[in-house]
Amino acid sequence: MNGAESLVKTLVNAGVEVCFTNPGTSEIHFVAALDRVEGMRAILGLFEGVVTGAADGYGRMAEKPAATLLHLGPGLANGGANLHNAHKANTPLVNIIGEHATYHQQYNAPLHTDIKGLAEPLSHWVDCCTSSDEIAFYGQQAVQQAMTAPGKVASLILPADVSWNENTNGPVDCPPIPRQIETVPEATIALLAQVLNEDQTTVILMTGQALSEQGLALGNQIANSCDASLCCELFSAKLARGVGRAKIERLPYFGEKVIERLASVKHLILVGCSAPVAFFAYPNAESNLVPSDCNVHTLATPEQDAIKALQDLALATHASADNIQYYAPHTPELPSGDLNMSSLATTFAALLPENAIISDEANTSGAFLFPMSQGCPKHDWLSLTGGAIGQGLPVALGAAVACPDRKVISMQADGSAMYTIQSLWTIARENLDVTVVILANRSYAILQIEFARLGAGAPGNKSKSLLDLSNPNLDFVSIAQGMGINASQASSAEEFNEQFAEAMNNHGPRLIEAIL
Amino acid sequence: MNGAESLVKTLVNAGVEVCFTNPGTSEIHFVAALDRVEGMRAILGLFEGVVTGAADGYGRMAEKPAATLLHLGPGLANGGANLHNAHKANTPLVNIIGEHATYHQQYNAPLHTDIKGLAEPLSHWVDCCTSSDEIAFYGQQAVQQAMTAPGKVASLILPADVSWNENTNGPVDCPPIPRQIETVPEATIALLAQVLNEDQTTVILMTGQALSEQGLALGNQIANSCDASLCCELFSAKLARGVGRAKIERLPYFGEKVIERLASVKHLILVGCSAPVAFFAYPNAESNLVPSDCNVHTLATPEQDAIKALQDLALATHASADNIQYYAPHTPELPSGDLNMSSLATTFAALLPENAIISDEANTSGAFLFPMSQGCPKHDWLSLTGGAIGQGLPVALGAAVACPDRKVISMQADGSAMYTIQSLWTIARENLDVTVVILANRSYAILQIEFARLGAGAPGNKSKSLLDLSNPNLDFVSIAQGMGINASQASSAEEFNEQFAEAMNNHGPRLIEAIL
Repeated sequence: MNGAESLVKTLVNAGVEVCFTNPGTSEIHFVAALDRVEGMRAILGLFEGVVTGAADGYGRMAEKPAATLLHLGPGLANGGANLHNAHKANTPLVNIIGEHATYHQQYNAPLHTDIKGLAEPLSHWVDCCTSSDEIAFYGQQAVQQAMTAPGKVASLILPADVSWNENTNGPVDCPPIPRQIETVPEATIALLAQVLNEDQTTVILMTGQALSEQGLALGNQIANSCDASLCCELFSAKLARGVGRAKIERLPYFGEKVIERLASVKHLILVGCSAPVAFFAYPNAESNLVPSDCNVHTLATPEQDAIKALQDLALATHASADNIQYYAPHTPELPSGDLNMSSLATTFAALLPENAIISDEANTSGAFLFPMSQGCPKHDWLSLTGGAIGQGLPVALGAAVACPDRKVISMQADGSAMYTIQSLWTIARENLDVTVVILANRSYAILQIEFARLGAGAPGNKSKSLLDLSNPNLDFVSIAQGMGINASQASSAEEFNEQFAEAMNNHGPRLIEAIL
Repeated sequence: MNGAESLVKTLVNAGVEVCFTNPGTSEIHFVAALDRVEGMRAILGLFEGVVTGAADGYGRMAEKPAATLLHLGPGLANGGANLHNAHKANTPLVNIIGEHATYHQQYNAPLHTDIKGLAEPLSHWVDCCTSSDEIAFYGQQAVQQAMTAPGKVASLILPADVSWNENTNGPVDCPPIPRQIETVPEATIALLAQVLNEDQTTVILMTGQALSEQGLALGNQIANSCDASLCCELFSAKLARGVGRAKIERLPYFGEKVIERLASVKHLILVGCSAPVAFFAYPNAESNLVPSDCNVHTLATPEQDAIKALQDLALATHASADNIQYYAPHTPELPSGDLNMSSLATTFAALLPENAIISDEANTSGAFLFPMSQGCPKHDWLSLTGGAIGQGLPVALGAAVACPDRKVISMQADGSAMYTIQSLWTIARENLDVTVVILANRSYAILQIEFARLGAGAPGNKSKSLLDLSNPNLDFVSIAQGMGINASQASSAEEFNEQFAEAMNNHGPRLIEAIL
């Protein structure tokens, strides 16, 4: 058994079932090992941003890692933006990067670069194995790292000769590796129960596991019982929503709105997250959005068990489950007339099927999607976590691989869609149940807004041109058909109603370009 | 005048005329400065790999840098693979990366990452400016670095507040910055003249400036006068070719072929390059391709003036210009029947116009293009320098911006085309005179070859699937039309003859998908 085979077998033993890849010459023995070892599905992306984004979407839904397989430094760089997003999402991910053979690296061949240097800013853990006899242990270690709460991007550098040389030890015979998580100390629970019993304005801010159905119910139970507010960050890796799920308020995007919301808050209790900061800096605006007289407490760090801590806090505060507020069913009427951000969101909310997974990279065009859909049948909402656009399509792809029985809907801004547009081909090849809605406003609309907010004056012709996606217009129907996807364009509410309904009622890849 | 305006004005003063960009919120003041300062053309790419690859193509042809403008760490990562290629090509390039405001970086906002850590493996020079009063000097320094022989990727990190705060010093009032180059010592010339006068098998291996019309003539003159061979690396940043240019032999791709070619060589004289090494490692194959009994000499390092060194060496060896061998005109007949690698190359050679620029990422499908076209009217040949595929289309784009009066032809393998397919939109928007020929063999053919060479056994179903681009087939005509490009498909030699002739006889963007 060679090193690559021992690695693949160990990953399978440890619970990794899928490898998203765009391999090259230095990864060929790993590719061959995928055939020789049972149990690992292999999925090709035509660009590495698809590969890493898909592994992110898979990890968020499966709550265990997929493996990637990337080709040397440039392959890693191509996948870097979506690794950054996965890193910020705390998605469990085993990121395998092929490297030249150990003895070949000294020759500075054309594809040689400092892979470790590139990987470190994008990963929680990076290591390089130089021995075929040891590679299986490194694989086990990578899965263990990925499964350590809250979830980690574990990058393993794999030289070609480590893959092709014999491993005399064989694979690690481990069981599937469970999530490693720390427990919140009792003293913390007692302290925060006391804070919640004070009669001061309090916000509980949650992310991660706390945004599961169970975590939301507990958070809502505590908040309502103690007269506090329950909030989440705007960009969550995964948020359980819809009928039967407990209510939560999402913080706004722009810093000044967050400051306004938190103005009178005296206690901020963090569950798995940091205190809110501005997404970007602006001249004469605050970066730290928490009032100076607000006390910031941590119930659970990202590394700690938020569900257990919420359970304990509910007991300590004598919070009653009777106080939980759930979203009530609300199905809007199908709209007619103009297709715009509001009517599109209405159709979306009217037709969203139960158990849907939403990959939300709608950006400015999606303003109505989230509030309109809170009364829909239960669903999960995946957001852009690290701000690096081009995440929505591959995250939808990966989520569909993790959850083949659920409808995945990618609500996708047009400008951002172009970063990883190659995702469409893999969605077609794997025949995934993904409906992509391209929200075509033909501009980088967020940048037009930011231009004004930054006080950069009136945009001149060059600025306008750089923030505009017309001349020529992108035709997403043509692009999608070119990658084997059934696609159509909608220009009115009626057309969108019909096309979206058809997509919801049928299985398989589908793209609708909504002209806004 | 704010920092961004002082930077743009300094870049313009220093000779930078074009900025390729995909900006974000942190770069908005730089975008606004492009309007307020005269003299910088602004070109939008829909993905950063397009931006950096275009700057590479521009720099190779203009022999001075374009600026890029990238959005934070993820924008840099997206542009990383083509920065790697530019780095290996020694292309002059000023790579500007926006960063969060200096005071905002401590907050670990979603887009925060270690930009310097990411930039260092991809650049020859990296610096970050933290003062609006100093940024103009940093800009001047970046251009100076880029213009230092052989050409450098100079990365300048630009925090948002450095852009928007006032610069009380104003821009640097410098003249266009010339190329900085070292001179080869006389002793080196004398020594190598002696080597060439010995009666031993000698190869002169050249790259960089030596592959210009003048450098080739000098190299050929010396080689023929001294009974040596003149060679170049397979992947050159720019090679002058065609009728009236001096002959040069290109080394093969596979290591064992290079070893065979160099087997009896006793002296290897390097002009601007390193000794040849294998592109990849293979089990039981050599990485170092130079025979152990061969003496390796350096006429000119990459930092030194190769043209002057060749002139001096020609004098020192008494080489006569009468000995220069030039390519003779040869125009093949247009082929008929099947469209295949050979007939496609025949049409290409039959119709190539004078002064064309070829961006060659044809990979395995291009085997006949290079040898068939040596008797064509004079042209320049741009290769994939760093092995990171996805370079061909943006390099063609950038070359067309640098040389608006020349026909640019992108000979592009299908798999590689998908990495930076967004280039087509910018080619359309800027109405560039670029003809893209997609060589559609619907596979990663090179990997199918490498699979066998690596001794990885017979590919199983998963391996086959990962090396194959069918199921579904990509329809490049549809994809190109979706980005505003006039496109057609050719399935026979006659169809390709007609479509390629039409493209050569008309100005503007054009794509032909050649089904091989």
